[in-house]
Amino acid sequence: MFPSPKPINSTGPLLDVFTKSVLENLVILAPGLLGGSVARAAHARGLAHRITVWARRPDARLKLREQPWVNHVAETAADAVRDASLVVLAAPVDKIIELARHIAPHLPAGAIVTDVGSVKGELCRACHSALTPRAHFIGAHPMAGSEKTGWENATPTLFEKRVCFVTPMEGADETAVATVARFWSDLGSEVTTLSPDQHDEITAHVSHLPQVVATSLATFLATKNPQWRNLSGNGLRDTTRIAASDATMWIEIFQQNRDEVLRALRQFQDELQCFQTSLANRDWPEVRTRLERGKAWRDGFRP
Amino acid sequence: MFPSPKPINSTGPLLDVFTKSVLENLVILAPGLLGGSVARAAHARGLAHRITVWARRPDARLKLREQPWVNHVAETAADAVRDASLVVLAAPVDKIIELARHIAPHLPAGAIVTDVGSVKGELCRACHSALTPRAHFIGAHPMAGSEKTGWENATPTLFEKRVCFVTPMEGADETAVATVARFWSDLGSEVTTLSPDQHDEITAHVSHLPQVVATSLATFLATKNPQWRNLSGNGLRDTTRIAASDATMWIEIFQQNRDEVLRALRQFQDELQCFQTSLANRDWPEVRTRLERGKAWRDGFRP
Repeated sequence: MFPSPKPINSTGPLLDVFTKSVLENLVILAPGLLGGSVARAAHARGLAHRITVWARRPDARLKLREQPWVNHVAETAADAVRDASLVVLAAPVDKIIELARHIAPHLPAGAIVTDVGSVKGELCRACHSALTPRAHFIGAHPMAGSEKTGWENATPTLFEKRVCFVTPMEGADETAVATVARFWSDLGSEVTTLSPDQHDEITAHVSHLPQVVATSLATFLATKNPQWRNLSGNGLRDTTRIAASDATMWIEIFQQNRDEVLRALRQFQDELQCFQTSLANRDWPEVRTRLERGKAWRDGFRP
Repeated sequence: MFPSPKPINSTGPLLDVFTKSVLENLVILAPGLLGGSVARAAHARGLAHRITVWARRPDARLKLREQPWVNHVAETAADAVRDASLVVLAAPVDKIIELARHIAPHLPAGAIVTDVGSVKGELCRACHSALTPRAHFIGAHPMAGSEKTGWENATPTLFEKRVCFVTPMEGADETAVATVARFWSDLGSEVTTLSPDQHDEITAHVSHLPQVVATSLATFLATKNPQWRNLSGNGLRDTTRIAASDATMWIEIFQQNRDEVLRALRQFQDELQCFQTSLANRDWPEVRTRLERGKAWRDGFRP
């Protein structure tokens, strides 16, 4: 009934868990928190003979030159990718397509390109068509982050034990898919391979909808006495934690995944209305059923 | 514009932060996690010369006799309260009124009675009228708990740095109010004094509504692929954490605070609908305003 996401270890014999794969030249374009953490983790784990980065701002390029986890800082994105083995597009999600189109003619034949964007459908289709047939685009979305932004806050452990989606288009080159899955796995993350559209449906539910809910709970309570937030237990604190996330990042996500988020949000509103109706009707057996069903689902989280 | 909850240190000169008040005989009826923790904290902090308890079940009374934090186990609730200085009604919220009525004729004149129930309006009115004029009922609600239940899981530190509401009726005896506020403060909690109805309005918003939201998010996602919950970041984990709470406890709360919860829930649904409309209309400035307003509110939590 449910399409099962394909876990990394089903990708086959190309992946040998006992050896790591070392890239000749890992290129990271426009590193922020995620891109910087890719570089630091790859450096710490010895995943590349050479790490090349390019940043849009000249002062960032200057500072990146001093980082021990960078071997070469390129002056242009085109220069950066010229002899790349694997390119990571680490720009904000609404700038990735543009960056892929910009570097396409400069990539060596057969190069593999991945990214860190949190919405995948449109992005993967556009990047795939920009790079094909010269190179391979295999999208990725590491479910890792922090309230902090910028490569200055990058850490080599950011991806450890975190889910990373790898989202190849239908018919993508199998070796390229395996290389990208292997790369994210070697960075410490738990890779799940699925289609870009399946990714967007899942994240609309498990990530984007919770953000709408937490934000709306926060904006609603903001209309009440501001002292109330300090008269609560840990429940409110946890339920609204992600309301403190960066607004700009979330605008980009909502713009790119609007349709899936709206679908999930409307269904959630129906669910909330059912709870309201059972409470209004004093239908306590139904309220209990809902509480118990929610508890059973939450208890099923892995530790 | 907002009625300001009265903090403990505004109660006046009766409260001396440098000395603690020692009760002659602290009586705890029907201890569970909260009542047991009251006893253990009072014992650890030397707040009573004697700690008397009574439990409904004979086997619990037998086991309580062996606890180092209990001085006397009474065979009946009436016996337990006969020479009480302060009585804590620690039964589940829907059993407290019945217990207050039961002990009323056995209380010494001028005794003070408090409780731990999480809904206060109806409960305080009923308990106040059951005990007046012989004794004083001053309701309380410590915002502390755990997934675990029962006095076997009680800890002496459960109330430390947690909010505790003290909810006197209009015109309550000031010394009794001060004694109860002082008691909860001496247990380590941060006391806020307000009316029972104000309490119920606030907790409907900061505690009961978040429970409805977390439960509904969980029951909604339970209708989707069960594997999805393990493909999420920490956001979903935090947003739904309280969905794992005990269903029986929550049924009692929703029964007792139904009207306030419905009012808060309907307003929250309107807020969610506004978010949905701005997303559907691609009104990105409005979506940004909401994200930023939610962030500002959440950033205002005390650390």
